[in-house]
Amino acid sequence: MTTPRRAVVLLSGGVDSTTSLAIAKRDGYECYAISFDYGQRHRVELEAAARVATALQAKRHLVVKVDLRSIGGSALTDSIDVPTGGSPEGLIPITYVPARNTVFLSLALGWAEVLGAWDIFIGANAVDYSGYPDCRPEYIEAFERMANLATKASIEGQGSFRIHAPLIRMTKQEIIATGRSLGIDYSITWSCYDPTPEGKPCGACDSCIIRIRGGA
Amino acid sequence: MTTPRRAVVLLSGGVDSTTSLAIAKRDGYECYAISFDYGQRHRVELEAAARVATALQAKRHLVVKVDLRSIGGSALTDSIDVPTGGSPEGLIPITYVPARNTVFLSLALGWAEVLGAWDIFIGANAVDYSGYPDCRPEYIEAFERMANLATKASIEGQGSFRIHAPLIRMTKQEIIATGRSLGIDYSITWSCYDPTPEGKPCGACDSCIIRIRGGA
Repeated sequence: MTTPRRAVVLLSGGVDSTTSLAIAKRDGYECYAISFDYGQRHRVELEAAARVATALQAKRHLVVKVDLRSIGGSALTDSIDVPTGGSPEGLIPITYVPARNTVFLSLALGWAEVLGAWDIFIGANAVDYSGYPDCRPEYIEAFERMANLATKASIEGQGSFRIHAPLIRMTKQEIIATGRSLGIDYSITWSCYDPTPEGKPCGACDSCIIRIRGGA
Repeated sequence: MTTPRRAVVLLSGGVDSTTSLAIAKRDGYECYAISFDYGQRHRVELEAAARVATALQAKRHLVVKVDLRSIGGSALTDSIDVPTGGSPEGLIPITYVPARNTVFLSLALGWAEVLGAWDIFIGANAVDYSGYPDCRPEYIEAFERMANLATKASIEGQGSFRIHAPLIRMTKQEIIATGRSLGIDYSITWSCYDPTPEGKPCGACDSCIIRIRGGA
């Protein structure tokens, strides 16, 4: 019996990261889920992440605190209204958080190095979030290249890091169909950026709209 | 009168980052200093960073909380003893924090984007810390390339980010001579990784040894 390879999987608790975790598991990785308590308004997503980590039998689930609120610049962490009714074509939405995936992947990289994991999964998607620069394939490749110059483990020649973004070219429907085929019950996930005071999804933010259109 | 260009400067409160801030200031940048409360044992360095930011008239000084302790893997954040008496040749010291500069530069990048700054200064040095992979020129270049694919500001063509590592090829003596020529009083800085219970430098960790050899 061989030891399973370990993977660090970024897990927000939403549809995409949950599917990415299911794919990593299908591919035979022992999964270490990592979530971020970054000052997001929709902190309720961390509860979903914990449910998902349990349901998909992640080996561990780590929640790292990083205060992106102190940096500002986003409707997700500042007191800027989350827009409703979809984003204008060609514009990057105000829900974009500056350098968020870079910060999250960097923390995942640090944990991967500690765990001896060479594989990192991120649910980045270039189709529905085409406005987010850090969800594009060329960005993921550049991060991977940098990661392999950044760490003790890689420069000592023990291996090389690979950043997997298995959903990057899928539509939301394809993502959800893939997840369902892997047994995901999406009712345990969370998407909304701007929950109601009662803790329910708003049904009107970009993330709710994409989820509803996708049929989750 | 033109508006001065803004720069985000990573500031630990040690000799190198203080000199890097002085160089950024000399070069005409309006400096935004950023420090990290990351679970380091030598948290006292944040007080030095605040003194330095004031003395060198940084426009702002932001301290971002990021819990690297939860990731582990380093004598600087874990309950592993900080070694004394110098590191063995060719080995990366246990004081290496996995992906630390990547995490710090990512957070600096996010703040730079919010501020409209295109220049980021880091006091990385490849000579005295030759064991740290994320202090090498090829790493800095790979980060810069990734940064220009990561952010809304850069992909919208508003400019491009530059990561400045002005000390990267200097010896500690050269760094200190440069800083003194720019008026730095190094007595306000802090280097020690493993302060005594009374809050004094231990005089024996790598960082103390390098500082003492450099004559600061």
